[in-house]
Amino acid sequence: MSESVDQLIHARWVIPVSPADTVFEHYSVAIRAGAIVDVLAQSEARSRYRAAEVVELGEHALIPGLVNLHAHAAMNLMRGMGDDLPLMRWLQETIWPAEGKHVSPAFVRDGTLLAAREMLRGGITTCNDMYFYPEAAARAFDEAGMRAVVGIIMLDFPTPYASDADDYLRKGLRTRDQWRDAPLLGFSVAPHAPYTVSDASFERVASLAAELDLPIHIHVHETATEISDGLAAHGVRPLARLERLGLLGPNLIAVHAVHLDETDLARLAHHGCSVAHCPTSNMKLGSGIAPLSSLVQRGINIGLGTDGAASNNRLDIFQEMRHAALLAKAVNCDASVIPAHRALHMATLGGAQALGLENNIGSITPGKRADLCAVSLSGPLMQPCFDPVSHLVYVCDRDQVSHVWVDGTLRVKDGTALLRISDKELLEITTVWQTKLVN
Amino acid sequence: MSESVDQLIHARWVIPVSPADTVFEHYSVAIRAGAIVDVLAQSEARSRYRAAEVVELGEHALIPGLVNLHAHAAMNLMRGMGDDLPLMRWLQETIWPAEGKHVSPAFVRDGTLLAAREMLRGGITTCNDMYFYPEAAARAFDEAGMRAVVGIIMLDFPTPYASDADDYLRKGLRTRDQWRDAPLLGFSVAPHAPYTVSDASFERVASLAAELDLPIHIHVHETATEISDGLAAHGVRPLARLERLGLLGPNLIAVHAVHLDETDLARLAHHGCSVAHCPTSNMKLGSGIAPLSSLVQRGINIGLGTDGAASNNRLDIFQEMRHAALLAKAVNCDASVIPAHRALHMATLGGAQALGLENNIGSITPGKRADLCAVSLSGPLMQPCFDPVSHLVYVCDRDQVSHVWVDGTLRVKDGTALLRISDKELLEITTVWQTKLVN
Repeated sequence: MSESVDQLIHARWVIPVSPADTVFEHYSVAIRAGAIVDVLAQSEARSRYRAAEVVELGEHALIPGLVNLHAHAAMNLMRGMGDDLPLMRWLQETIWPAEGKHVSPAFVRDGTLLAAREMLRGGITTCNDMYFYPEAAARAFDEAGMRAVVGIIMLDFPTPYASDADDYLRKGLRTRDQWRDAPLLGFSVAPHAPYTVSDASFERVASLAAELDLPIHIHVHETATEISDGLAAHGVRPLARLERLGLLGPNLIAVHAVHLDETDLARLAHHGCSVAHCPTSNMKLGSGIAPLSSLVQRGINIGLGTDGAASNNRLDIFQEMRHAALLAKAVNCDASVIPAHRALHMATLGGAQALGLENNIGSITPGKRADLCAVSLSGPLMQPCFDPVSHLVYVCDRDQVSHVWVDGTLRVKDGTALLRISDKELLEITTVWQTKLVN
Repeated sequence: MSESVDQLIHARWVIPVSPADTVFEHYSVAIRAGAIVDVLAQSEARSRYRAAEVVELGEHALIPGLVNLHAHAAMNLMRGMGDDLPLMRWLQETIWPAEGKHVSPAFVRDGTLLAAREMLRGGITTCNDMYFYPEAAARAFDEAGMRAVVGIIMLDFPTPYASDADDYLRKGLRTRDQWRDAPLLGFSVAPHAPYTVSDASFERVASLAAELDLPIHIHVHETATEISDGLAAHGVRPLARLERLGLLGPNLIAVHAVHLDETDLARLAHHGCSVAHCPTSNMKLGSGIAPLSSLVQRGINIGLGTDGAASNNRLDIFQEMRHAALLAKAVNCDASVIPAHRALHMATLGGAQALGLENNIGSITPGKRADLCAVSLSGPLMQPCFDPVSHLVYVCDRDQVSHVWVDGTLRVKDGTALLRISDKELLEITTVWQTKLVN
């Protein structure tokens, strides 16, 4: 007697990420009630299971859904604004004035929807987000059917969204309460950065994160200036200050972490922090190049992030995998640094672990939720193919993504995003914002 | 009375590259007998010209066809072989044995066709190629209808292709004679590298290039080891040796040029040499990062190259533009270094100038040949768009390329490559070679 499941996916290659460095050929994944129930050879799967829906992926690699460990999704509406300007002119002349004038719940909802559409289409099933009006972002991720960890953002200066640190936290925590029962939404505490948050506020963040068991999502050591300014203001490097304030721990996601000396590396390793490596954003803003292979050598967990579309300008984890692997080889003058499997781990299980979600997502493992991405390796641009994992990192575009499942639900089918909002509606909304932003 | 032309292309944006930093909105390009005859506002174009064929590109940027200034096209059959190995193990254990065993005229013809298909589909209309059996490469480029400068390759050791330096030159020159009347094919002298070519052979190259007015296409200063070995063997750095041997001049294309000290920069500038910058290959092989902004500051002409598909693993000049711009910002810690227009210049007119073809191709200019590439900026992934040139460099994939003309002939239409050989045939050929290569 065969066993009943909801879906059975037969793929040319299944790349589970855990166990590491493994490629299963002609394998299948069985899904029931949104969970992966089995990973087994196709021949066995076809006899053992009968499925309501069968998906045949004869020239595809099936991988875990990708995790974007750092985004400001709503900034998709500012894609490419003020490119090629030096960092401070870019912020002061372009981004901050535009944000001050235009950012609102409607802006955040619309921009986040546009970003969710982009991410899902490119195989990203989970987004770790930080922006103003997290209640609007939560609504958009929910509407898109995408898994997200929404940041309870906090700064020590007023914006149109909130008046002071207390106000940021109060509003963010209220949003968390409202979405308590949403299975795809989680929350982090997201103090913006060492240079925008006071010691007193950081202490509140630390106790809140401990009390509610939340990740802490923070920009840190992004630029050389941040560190020299931090030294001048506080007498210690920003990571040392965060350590003193009790923020460093396995729940800390250090975003960027570009400029790290030996003491910084030791601190991150000692406390079991994770790093959200954002190679494209770090290059594009001229921040520098993070010491990725040193982080890996220290055993520090790494995920990959796109940052916002104003500084990337794509929310594309395929690009981040390629850049992570290529940049590390370049700066180390060693082609064997960060091989393809390692980059894929960062883009999936590494990101999941940073978010405390490693028991739910990040690998194709029975018992985990069915967040999956199928990538077509057919056609002349993909040929020949000696190693599908190499192709995922060094050859593929996100355009090769054919199918995406979040929690067992198909969100991309044959390359078409299946969102409640149509592309036509999204384009209309985007055009309205673009017109506002340039005036 | 309106004037008759063969084709009239109406585009949302025409980006001519020359004049520099220019974007024409709602512009048109008129083509007659394979040449650009006019570039003018759509409203004027529609009244001034009647065309046998009209192409409406309402959401597209029209740019000059891209120039790939360094490729080993035939190596497309070895795409991704031995990835992530240290350079010398990659060469000694994977690439050289495979080449020794398999490279033949049939291999080069088939691999070059696969590469030409990839390049044309991605908007590349001209390829500066270097590989064994240039007669087979010339045949393939001709069959694909692609513009190419084929290297008369030369080394000082025997391969299955040729026995000694004389034999390489004799065979290459014979190929050049055979294709003398092919309008899309040109030739260079291509001494492989300083470490594979003797002083005597270099002197022959210099006199041959001068006599026949050919570019010289050579790998140089790719790795730190090449320079220390060169110093040990010859007492001077490789570029100084080439200078002494009379090779440096405006016809020299220095490929890679990763490791350059002040004397190297001064030499390249003084002699008016061009550099073929190959950022992806340099990263992937762990060669290092070329000092692109120093080259630009010295006024040295730069084009972009993909290198072969065994070390990239895409022949994609969109990727090279992005990597050129991003890497330079990262290593200079300055977001304003290599802005998007500059990267586009390198990918078009810079490459054309390096090949001595700047009067024929590289910009959308009346009198030049109609090598053109249309890129669709429609759809949610491309929105919003504040600056089409920024999008070309920081957002687009080559998948957005919709139309490609070489010498006025359409080679890609609505995203489909129009080659004499079908994709099905190409895939069959590739599969045969893949099977051979792994056995």
